[in-house]
Amino acid sequence: MNNETNQMNTPYYAVIFTSIKNEQSIGYQEMAQQMWVLAQEQPGFLGVESARNELGITVSYWKDLPSIAKWKQNSDHMLAQQFGRDKWYSHYKVRICLVEREYEFTS
Amino acid sequence: MNNETNQMNTPYYAVIFTSIKNEQSIGYQEMAQQMWVLAQEQPGFLGVESARNELGITVSYWKDLPSIAKWKQNSDHMLAQQFGRDKWYSHYKVRICLVEREYEFTS
Repeated sequence: MNNETNQMNTPYYAVIFTSIKNEQSIGYQEMAQQMWVLAQEQPGFLGVESARNELGITVSYWKDLPSIAKWKQNSDHMLAQQFGRDKWYSHYKVRICLVEREYEFTS
Repeated sequence: MNNETNQMNTPYYAVIFTSIKNEQSIGYQEMAQQMWVLAQEQPGFLGVESARNELGITVSYWKDLPSIAKWKQNSDHMLAQQFGRDKWYSHYKVRICLVEREYEFTS
């Protein structure tokens, strides 16, 4: 197959988290791993994808806005966010997005 | 400053392009670079961010849906898309997203 195929899962939400780390990394990997495990347990969580070079991009996918709001207010996650601001990130940006359409290709 | 700040640029659009490459890379970097230059010249283009490990994530930002549609139909870009399917990607997925809200943090 060499065609793009349309998907039928829309609409749902994506949270695009772009970040630049500072030089401190103590505890970062462990916390990232913990948050990955914890996110999977949240109601409305659909998946997550991540890549990092100098810039890190993590996109998590959610059923709806209340699921995202609830995850942002999760107490363990709030602690991780605070650590992120205090220790690990020199910059980050969060974008809350409605996924309106999607298509994909598999060779 | 150690606070998240709200942005006022929304709404606009994000195209999340996630991809897995196969082992062929001939011409890929050159084409990626050319598409990066060409995208910047398009009406409605707002920016692009990219990171790649095993998975590649490229997010491009656009003013509106017609700008995205026009870029998808750009003849040089269509050729790059065909090459991508024929030569470089084993899988990709494109998500067209309305960015409803954003906030950011700078230390």
